[in-house]
Amino acid sequence: MTSHRASLAVIPGDGIGPEVVEQALKVLTAACGEQAFDLTHYDLGAQHWLRTGEVLDDETLAGLARHDAIVLGAVGAAPGSSQVPSGLLERGLLLKLRFSFDQDVNLRPARLYPGVPTPLASSVLDKGPIDFVVVREGTEGLYAGNGGTLRKGTPNEVATEVSVNTAFGVERVVRYAFDLAATRRKKVTLVHKHNVLVNAGGLWRRVVEEVARERPDVEHDYLHVDAATIMLVSEPQRFDVIVTDNLFGDILTDEAGAVTGGIGLAPSANINTAGEFPSMFEPVHGSAPDIAGRGIADPTAAISSMALLLRHLGRPADAQRIDDAVSADIAAHRTTPRSTSQIGDAIAAALG
Amino acid sequence: MTSHRASLAVIPGDGIGPEVVEQALKVLTAACGEQAFDLTHYDLGAQHWLRTGEVLDDETLAGLARHDAIVLGAVGAAPGSSQVPSGLLERGLLLKLRFSFDQDVNLRPARLYPGVPTPLASSVLDKGPIDFVVVREGTEGLYAGNGGTLRKGTPNEVATEVSVNTAFGVERVVRYAFDLAATRRKKVTLVHKHNVLVNAGGLWRRVVEEVARERPDVEHDYLHVDAATIMLVSEPQRFDVIVTDNLFGDILTDEAGAVTGGIGLAPSANINTAGEFPSMFEPVHGSAPDIAGRGIADPTAAISSMALLLRHLGRPADAQRIDDAVSADIAAHRTTPRSTSQIGDAIAAALG
Ligand SMILES: CC(C)[C@H](C(=O)O)[C@@H](O)C(=O)O
Ligand SMILES: CC(C)[C@H](C(=O)O)[C@@H](O)C(=O)O
Repeated sequence: MTSHRASLAVIPGDGIGPEVVEQALKVLTAACGEQAFDLTHYDLGAQHWLRTGEVLDDETLAGLARHDAIVLGAVGAAPGSSQVPSGLLERGLLLKLRFSFDQDVNLRPARLYPGVPTPLASSVLDKGPIDFVVVREGTEGLYAGNGGTLRKGTPNEVATEVSVNTAFGVERVVRYAFDLAATRRKKVTLVHKHNVLVNAGGLWRRVVEEVARERPDVEHDYLHVDAATIMLVSEPQRFDVIVTDNLFGDILTDEAGAVTGGIGLAPSANINTAGEFPSMFEPVHGSAPDIAGRGIADPTAAISSMALLLRHLGRPADAQRIDDAVSADIAAHRTTPRSTSQIGDAIAAALG
Repeated sequence: MTSHRASLAVIPGDGIGPEVVEQALKVLTAACGEQAFDLTHYDLGAQHWLRTGEVLDDETLAGLARHDAIVLGAVGAAPGSSQVPSGLLERGLLLKLRFSFDQDVNLRPARLYPGVPTPLASSVLDKGPIDFVVVREGTEGLYAGNGGTLRKGTPNEVATEVSVNTAFGVERVVRYAFDLAATRRKKVTLVHKHNVLVNAGGLWRRVVEEVARERPDVEHDYLHVDAATIMLVSEPQRFDVIVTDNLFGDILTDEAGAVTGGIGLAPSANINTAGEFPSMFEPVHGSAPDIAGRGIADPTAAISSMALLLRHLGRPADAQRIDDAVSADIAAHRTTPRSTSQIGDAIAAALG
């Protein structure tokens, strides 16, 4: 694979997105050389929409489909923005890409690097290292965009949101989770809320039981989502691979990011497991409009996402070098305040 | 009000439910005397269902409706139980009561008592005392039981869950939250996910904006649910009153319980704000089948729920005495392992 010059689409996006992507590409180049990738920048996001009125047109989407993978920074205006309607960019751009490119596995590793300040007490940390992966379903559930509003703005308004779950969609991510666990500590935890969401929860449970029967090497258990939020702060060491739906995965991975030292360190991969469309690599964090433009965003999550990208493109040795450089950088500097580019420069230099 | 002999329905329920309810009633009696309440026990839950095949019949429901309030322990079999179908008791009993008695406000205070062991580091605790209340909507959202399964058990299965939200249902809990905040630190935080759940999130946001205009004394802000799970561990002091939907409230209050020393301490009230039906008082924790029958469950949450009950029944002074006794008991004993009845006895003795 290393001889093939891979073609990457780069979507820096909004807020701190462009700042962290710049560092991620710097590190990618340092790891693999200038010649390894063809980079094509796509100017999409809030500014692009304000200027052109387009979120993501069909032609651009078709263009993106031709790349080997996509590097994304962050998308979304400030929650209270009056210029950009709520959800326009999230649904029209970020989720549109995840859905159009059938990125079924949203892979989110959570690992506490030694020495990183965390909100957890030593009574929890003393239980052992924290190192788990969330396999979040990426193309169904409450993210399907099935919902509506009746009698909007009246005292009789009814607003609905429909979570859509299919055996097809659930099975592929559950299989991925068991396969992944087999390469790790061999434990899958399904997180759902099957005592209330009996239909969706029933489907998830049955699929897990079926796949588990084919994989006696991997143990599995179950937690309600409310109980899972407790375990993430009281005993995160119990987790190896979590498999869960789109919304629960969104919630749990932010909490997981917080307990492992902040989402400034949490990478993610949106994987089209069928290999028909490009997969997409992005930090878990959002566009953080409050700190954008000040050069203080931590690019580590975006940089670690490049390791996920390289593994996906069949370059595990280069991926490992980035992971190692990130670990070393964190170990050496966690308590020093550094700018976005200082962090990127340091990690790139370590690779160069 | 103290002259009226209030009539209480008592549903000990499953697992540790009966154990903690016994202590809660002991403390209630110590605080108000033997004569203050008529108690009627209702034998409902997993055992009752296994014996009779009935979860909650119409006659029992009508009987419960005639009481001034309901005291509930916990309901639900073990998640993996093969005897009791998933969700049967939760939906047929607990949620049936919340919905039948239109318990729109699910009130869940979260307070870190001084000296209680918490999973949070001192870097977080040093930011100040943690003391907030979650106003969880209790009669709508994904708990409405609107969903279904198509082609069950086949590779083409589709399972849906519908979140139903009404202006009527949202407005009353938002008003309650603003009224409550006005008596506290005067800040309401709406938690939702309006960038993805645009219909339901749009309704919640508009209602909050409208109510806020009538209450310039109370400030308000907004957090996406994923960001809220981060703030609960990194800066829980930022919260005064959180208002949110049924599922987000379920998730956030378990996490809130964990950061304030465990859900063994977290009380709740399910309030029918219209006053047409009995309100219900229960600990946030569940039936905890793993520790049931061993006399080791912490009854503090059930006991604190009695303070919420007394406030609801117009006995704020007695409520305060229970709160004070609980605080004092926690301060004196948090690191001593004690049995369920030792804790109940100690708090009752302090009141007697
Ligand atoms: C921006 C938002 C739509 C997105 C999500 O909810 O998936 C983000 O929170 C994430 O986790 O990637
Ligand atoms: C038992 C379950 C149905 C319930 C809920 O989800 O509301 C519980 O978790 C709670 O928070 O009271």
